[in-house]
Amino acid sequence: MIFECIKSEGLAHHSYFISSQGAAAVIDPRRDATVYQERACQHGANIQYILETHRNEDCLSGSLALATLTGGAIYHGHRSDWGYGNIAKDGDLFPLGGLQISALATPGHTDESLSYVLADMETGGQPFMIFSGDTLFVGDTGRIDLYGPAQAPRLAASIYDSIYQKLLPLGDGVILCPAHGAGSVCGANIADRDQSTLGLERQHNQALQKSRAEFIKYKTAEILEHPHYFSQMEMLNRDGPPLLGNLPQPPALSPAQFRSEMEQGILAVDTSPPVAFAGAHVPGAYSIWLGGLSAYSGWFLPYDRPLLLVLEDEMYLRAAVQSLVRIGYDRFAGYLKGGTESWYLASFPMESLPLLTVHELKAKMEHGEDLFLLDVRRHNERQTSYIPKSHHIYVGHLENRLGELPRDRPVAIYCTSGRRAGIAASILKRAGFGTVYNVLGSLSAWVNAGYPIIREHVEAAPRAPQEEQQLHNTTLP
Amino acid sequence: MIFECIKSEGLAHHSYFISSQGAAAVIDPRRDATVYQERACQHGANIQYILETHRNEDCLSGSLALATLTGGAIYHGHRSDWGYGNIAKDGDLFPLGGLQISALATPGHTDESLSYVLADMETGGQPFMIFSGDTLFVGDTGRIDLYGPAQAPRLAASIYDSIYQKLLPLGDGVILCPAHGAGSVCGANIADRDQSTLGLERQHNQALQKSRAEFIKYKTAEILEHPHYFSQMEMLNRDGPPLLGNLPQPPALSPAQFRSEMEQGILAVDTSPPVAFAGAHVPGAYSIWLGGLSAYSGWFLPYDRPLLLVLEDEMYLRAAVQSLVRIGYDRFAGYLKGGTESWYLASFPMESLPLLTVHELKAKMEHGEDLFLLDVRRHNERQTSYIPKSHHIYVGHLENRLGELPRDRPVAIYCTSGRRAGIAASILKRAGFGTVYNVLGSLSAWVNAGYPIIREHVEAAPRAPQEEQQLHNTTLP
Amino acid sequence: MIFECIKSEGLAHHSYFISSQGAAAVIDPRRDATVYQERACQHGANIQYILETHRNEDCLSGSLALATLTGGAIYHGHRSDWGYGNIAKDGDLFPLGGLQISALATPGHTDESLSYVLADMETGGQPFMIFSGDTLFVGDTGRIDLYGPAQAPRLAASIYDSIYQKLLPLGDGVILCPAHGAGSVCGANIADRDQSTLGLERQHNQALQKSRAEFIKYKTAEILEHPHYFSQMEMLNRDGPPLLGNLPQPPALSPAQFRSEMEQGILAVDTSPPVAFAGAHVPGAYSIWLGGLSAYSGWFLPYDRPLLLVLEDEMYLRAAVQSLVRIGYDRFAGYLKGGTESWYLASFPMESLPLLTVHELKAKMEHGEDLFLLDVRRHNERQTSYIPKSHHIYVGHLENRLGELPRDRPVAIYCTSGRRAGIAASILKRAGFGTVYNVLGSLSAWVNAGYPIIREHVEAAPRAPQEEQQLHNTTLP
Amino acid sequence: MIFECIKSEGLAHHSYFISSQGAAAVIDPRRDATVYQERACQHGANIQYILETHRNEDCLSGSLALATLTGGAIYHGHRSDWGYGNIAKDGDLFPLGGLQISALATPGHTDESLSYVLADMETGGQPFMIFSGDTLFVGDTGRIDLYGPAQAPRLAASIYDSIYQKLLPLGDGVILCPAHGAGSVCGANIADRDQSTLGLERQHNQALQKSRAEFIKYKTAEILEHPHYFSQMEMLNRDGPPLLGNLPQPPALSPAQFRSEMEQGILAVDTSPPVAFAGAHVPGAYSIWLGGLSAYSGWFLPYDRPLLLVLEDEMYLRAAVQSLVRIGYDRFAGYLKGGTESWYLASFPMESLPLLTVHELKAKMEHGEDLFLLDVRRHNERQTSYIPKSHHIYVGHLENRLGELPRDRPVAIYCTSGRRAGIAASILKRAGFGTVYNVLGSLSAWVNAGYPIIREHVEAAPRAPQEEQQLHNTTLP
Repeated sequence: MIFECIKSEGLAHHSYFISSQGAAAVIDPRRDATVYQERACQHGANIQYILETHRNEDCLSGSLALATLTGGAIYHGHRSDWGYGNIAKDGDLFPLGGLQISALATPGHTDESLSYVLADMETGGQPFMIFSGDTLFVGDTGRIDLYGPAQAPRLAASIYDSIYQKLLPLGDGVILCPAHGAGSVCGANIADRDQSTLGLERQHNQALQKSRAEFIKYKTAEILEHPHYFSQMEMLNRDGPPLLGNLPQPPALSPAQFRSEMEQGILAVDTSPPVAFAGAHVPGAYSIWLGGLSAYSGWFLPYDRPLLLVLEDEMYLRAAVQSLVRIGYDRFAGYLKGGTESWYLASFPMESLPLLTVHELKAKMEHGEDLFLLDVRRHNERQTSYIPKSHHIYVGHLENRLGELPRDRPVAIYCTSGRRAGIAASILKRAGFGTVYNVLGSLSAWVNAGYPIIREHVEAAPRAPQEEQQLHNTTLP
Repeated sequence: MIFECIKSEGLAHHSYFISSQGAAAVIDPRRDATVYQERACQHGANIQYILETHRNEDCLSGSLALATLTGGAIYHGHRSDWGYGNIAKDGDLFPLGGLQISALATPGHTDESLSYVLADMETGGQPFMIFSGDTLFVGDTGRIDLYGPAQAPRLAASIYDSIYQKLLPLGDGVILCPAHGAGSVCGANIADRDQSTLGLERQHNQALQKSRAEFIKYKTAEILEHPHYFSQMEMLNRDGPPLLGNLPQPPALSPAQFRSEMEQGILAVDTSPPVAFAGAHVPGAYSIWLGGLSAYSGWFLPYDRPLLLVLEDEMYLRAAVQSLVRIGYDRFAGYLKGGTESWYLASFPMESLPLLTVHELKAKMEHGEDLFLLDVRRHNERQTSYIPKSHHIYVGHLENRLGELPRDRPVAIYCTSGRRAGIAASILKRAGFGTVYNVLGSLSAWVNAGYPIIREHVEAAPRAPQEEQQLHNTTLP
Repeated sequence: MIFECIKSEGLAHHSYFISSQGAAAVIDPRRDATVYQERACQHGANIQYILETHRNEDCLSGSLALATLTGGAIYHGHRSDWGYGNIAKDGDLFPLGGLQISALATPGHTDESLSYVLADMETGGQPFMIFSGDTLFVGDTGRIDLYGPAQAPRLAASIYDSIYQKLLPLGDGVILCPAHGAGSVCGANIADRDQSTLGLERQHNQALQKSRAEFIKYKTAEILEHPHYFSQMEMLNRDGPPLLGNLPQPPALSPAQFRSEMEQGILAVDTSPPVAFAGAHVPGAYSIWLGGLSAYSGWFLPYDRPLLLVLEDEMYLRAAVQSLVRIGYDRFAGYLKGGTESWYLASFPMESLPLLTVHELKAKMEHGEDLFLLDVRRHNERQTSYIPKSHHIYVGHLENRLGELPRDRPVAIYCTSGRRAGIAASILKRAGFGTVYNVLGSLSAWVNAGYPIIREHVEAAPRAPQEEQQLHNTTLP
Repeated sequence: MIFECIKSEGLAHHSYFISSQGAAAVIDPRRDATVYQERACQHGANIQYILETHRNEDCLSGSLALATLTGGAIYHGHRSDWGYGNIAKDGDLFPLGGLQISALATPGHTDESLSYVLADMETGGQPFMIFSGDTLFVGDTGRIDLYGPAQAPRLAASIYDSIYQKLLPLGDGVILCPAHGAGSVCGANIADRDQSTLGLERQHNQALQKSRAEFIKYKTAEILEHPHYFSQMEMLNRDGPPLLGNLPQPPALSPAQFRSEMEQGILAVDTSPPVAFAGAHVPGAYSIWLGGLSAYSGWFLPYDRPLLLVLEDEMYLRAAVQSLVRIGYDRFAGYLKGGTESWYLASFPMESLPLLTVHELKAKMEHGEDLFLLDVRRHNERQTSYIPKSHHIYVGHLENRLGELPRDRPVAIYCTSGRRAGIAASILKRAGFGTVYNVLGSLSAWVNAGYPIIREHVEAAPRAPQEEQQLHNTTLP
């Protein structure tokens, strides 16, 4: 048996390649799907099944692409509007060499959600792995808010029953393989550790230490961001995303060509780390660090026009394109050859963000300087604790709420580290705000410095800044 | 948390790299140990602990090499004669970022055997992984015959108690990470599937479905091959194997140079697949396929002299050297540049093995041809079933028992596939036997053809030919 | 300036990537053309020009594929029937960053043949490289027989004038970059050394040490093989070969599936080395070693049906597919999973070729054994020298001339090494001949053994067996 | 024949691997020498000769390391004090398969300088390549100032005679392979193009368009920087640099550990691009961009103590270590895990450099702001042109001349691009200067903006900023 978890960083999306005796299955393939074909080739296997646990809303499915490449058959749960693939029902069996996969209906995250049970037929047919999709994560359960608040209680009950009546009865010893790891927007408290079993979750998953009624109450109260690009993802995943072939290869543009594109209204994204963006940048560019492209671009960038990229090193081009393609950005007007340096060598105008450390921020606040302090973290992070006198607007909502910010005094922005604050700072600069600070280190540095915060009541301590985990994508070609 | 199982194919040796928050530990490193340093570098971690579950007898430890490379501290169980490292005792704790490792005394395979428990301190300190060394495998338990038959009952009782009193109480949900996978000489029935948990083993491991008394009886009756090179491995692992730096780089030899080395008594090993060796080969060479080098060379090749290699493709050189270095062969007189083809282009003499299919074998036997049929499989394979009228000598013992074979009539050799039979055929050719056949396909083909076999009583059906799994090493550079 | 020669082994085809200041050009791209796009991406350059020196007949052009990938403009010499691209004329200029390329009409190999001159504009515009296509090679000149014998004298005069009036006047110091290296079917005596200049060729190229009249006589007398697949290549290159996207990924077939395909008439090619094919093989398969696929398959394999592959190691699959795709074989019914070993494990019938060394051959001949000795080398190799009493049929013509061979006695086949003899042996076995020997080592071993040969008059000593250089393709993924 | 030029970026050092028929030679290996052994292994060749053209002063030789790895014999020109290797004399022959290398005494750059001529014995023994060391480059000749001004005229005459009497007579068609490419400190005007021949140099190399007397005058007037670390390199190359085995692997340090090392006086180098260093950095660190480490570190960093590294991405660690090891820095106290971000997340103090564009610089100067403008380019760059009212101190001399700078007003620093100005800015910040600007874009942006410069008389236009070519090393692992 060959088994591999293939992770898409930035999205914290986990897909799985399984093969036995020359037959292979893939669970929840990502859009840039040649990786699975390469595994199949490497192990001398043919991909027979492409199994989807549910229709994704945070990223594009690679099922259709992989089926085109390999001839494998796609299966997913019943839904009336699928544009491709076959319907699998609870109990359907998929023999795979010396293994067997069976479908298990586990509604809750969505109504059609399936899990897949993997059993070893050579040693008695016992289940030993469960591919639980967005139903059960390591340390958390799937979100149930995607159909709106009215349906949340019903879905919460449904996911509870799926977990207690379908998954946990498989036995404590079954290994858990969910569709996401820490950092995903699909779960609030997914553990940093990927390895788990149903037994460990039964005993230690905080969401499972409740009664059914408590669980439903807890889940329906959970407030998670719901980006508008989710509907774009869902629509494309319903019909099957456009087939890409190879990854797009954006052309290298000279500074003059790049400027010309910007002047025609094409949006530019600078994927440098926040500290480099602060040092100097192409005016008008969004700042979204490389590892954040998949999770944040959908809030800001249009789907109907091509994009421009600024990279700190051309080596990152492929990773940037890959991150964007996974959420449906397929068209690129080009990238700035030579990066920011070529821009200033050409004597084109530059902008910067002045440095404001947490120590300087504290001093300014104590001296009563007229500073607007903006917190751009998620709602559930804000709920836990914040810097006194700060205002809160989630970074994803910022462009629609710029009117709430003063234009006549400096704005200092923080998040957990300075990454999302960097996005926010670039939004304000684009909108013509004057002095804008990205507080590098943000709440983490503030807390590490021992400065006072305001804590609110929360049930469980939040985790580390999961949304911000990769500064660079580590899956470079 | 970063977790990776690093496998040494051929030996089916599993080692583990674990890191959390910049701190890393390695469990049972293999001798060519730069692989762990590379992982540490890739993940920005420092290797603090190098943990040995027991003193290996089937391959050389990389602990000392890795400690030299990284400064990590070596720990292993108590034994009076260690030439390096520190002693870990039951209950010793090793904090590792957000994780914690604790030592668990699990004697039985050897008296000093330790297991290591991995717990997640960020989510409550629960154990979630167990590194069980040679105590518990997926589908089997460790062998208890290494101290000789007199001590086997005591060790069998000891390993039973370690499993039942130390390992299983950790909980069904704990993930099992043993030191070997299928194909190892350290266990007879290790499952082909690597993924398991204590719960799955408790329920499905055939060795654990017995009472304590039954288990002791079963284990002491288990007959496993005990190669003489085990003592060489053990002695080197006691003192710490010589440090290698980079892998040795054997020189490329012309046919004339190669022949000259052979004439001076240096032994040559041809790592081509059996079918190529059969077609034509350098006379006097041993035939050991690439994936079998680590498991079989120790039976035949001397440790006090350099080796010569024949490769089918120079691309395999590194894998061949790696396989041999892992069992202590560090000196190479060279390899034949251009392989077998350069030999025959030079017009040097060649030998071959004529083709004998199972169909032809059966026909010859039915026609009463004067053929000596030799079975070279392991004792426990022979016990299960064999071709009628065949004689049995294990391939590892063959050189010492050549006197039992006739020199005046053809010898046809079989194993499960033709790989070990290929080794045996080369031994006979070296010893001057006349017509020697390697029955390609061997028992597998015989059975697949529906020809009759003699079945003996055995408790459990044996597995597929585990010893022969990799024709080529797949870990090419 | 970035410069790289990209070689397609097996075909000995040389293509070139050149870039300066973000602009790139590719000369004579091969069909699997993503390699050039990768170079462009790596160096931050856009491919502007795709320049063809002539319409190839020995392999498929990647110009159209590369233009589709990158948007670069294709140029080639005037011919009325091009299905794509633009016409470049003598003197046309292609500015490329700090460099400049100019087209130079150099007819002779074909009427539309162009060379491209590369000049450095930053240091004065001097030419420093010449891309000479099939006009001038290192050590030889292009063949002039492709339009048939009637036009050969005209083309020979034409290529002479192109070399003397167009190329050599560029200056001795200009670096020569031809379209082929040693081993190509497009030149008989191309040197093993790739590095040369116009000065070196003027002084040392044997074809250029003649008067114009002598040259024309010499070239028109040159007999080169003209495979029938050349017309297939030429037709496809005229219209633009089908676009491939990624390389085809043949499915892995079980022995039963593979046999079923063969029974339906699908042809199988075994790419193992001759010695392995001799040991045992799937009956009915062609034997063409991996490195020979591009140069020899076109003689034997049909273009209108898919192919089956037997590989010694699945690692070679990609290289095999690549080699076949380059000469237009795009459809694969699959490959035998597990190779020859899986076939005999399944107890399916095998065949072999018995070993016949040159020593045994000589002995048999001296003892007057009734043996038919067949030489399958090229006409110009045969002309130079051969083993006494051997008959000559070029391997490419063998299938059409099987009637000339006896079926009632053993046939022993030789070439230079045993590779082409291996192809020939497989052809005879497919045709039902009885005892067939591939004389491993062939003429090389015969000569190295000091056995007598018959030498004929030839002008220049032939080179080493260029056609047989790569046993395996060394460009593995 | 196998031929490869292996480039060490940053140093623009060119070394060469040549092999024929299993025998290989390496010309001027770099210190991290396993790359040559890998080539030898890949091509099935043994390295027989390790040939040095001269004793390097800008980087460490890998000859001794490579000889230790491979057993190859080292040769270099006569000098009384070599601590290793053999002496080669003019005319010494080194047969290499079908090739032959001969030594050619070409004194001038140093007295013992040798060139090596490569001839093809298979096609008549003609020379076709010349390895000219530091005697003749593409576009320039070697420097002759290393023995001091008194000996410069003698050496200039000597190198002229070596070129005219030894190299050029080999013939215009001979391909030139020098020891350095563009960007090396060993030549002022080396061309960006690597490909050349003796014919091209004879006609177009500006240094060769002079009479002997003119040439001597021109060379002795040439002023090149002479870093003090050259003597360290030379001494180590005389005795043989320490053997490294694998590259050193610096430990990952937490911000607290890193700070503690700095407090004990260990120097830190930040290898981020200038724009990131400007945004925020660890106070007290030198700023040397990754691609500049090999060329600039020797001016500033001590050889008797370990170093600390700050990297923008841990992926660059290996390249940074490689760059430093090549100039003799073998000891590393560690690198800052997580880079600058981890520093500010820990709330440790940060510093920044405010942005000053050339437009703002011009405005400030026109408004008469009290600004000290510092030019840190090389002497010969300064000679050509500069910004009005700027003061000149070469960056390498800056630490010794800080007393010439005002501490009571802002200092704005420029070079050609902002890279060397970044080094200079970090030196001033370390020395406690107040407001320091790195003028990003520097003279290039100033010129591109059309702002006035002062031009001085120079013989030939200088080239693009060669010293600054790689922002990142592109040879990542």
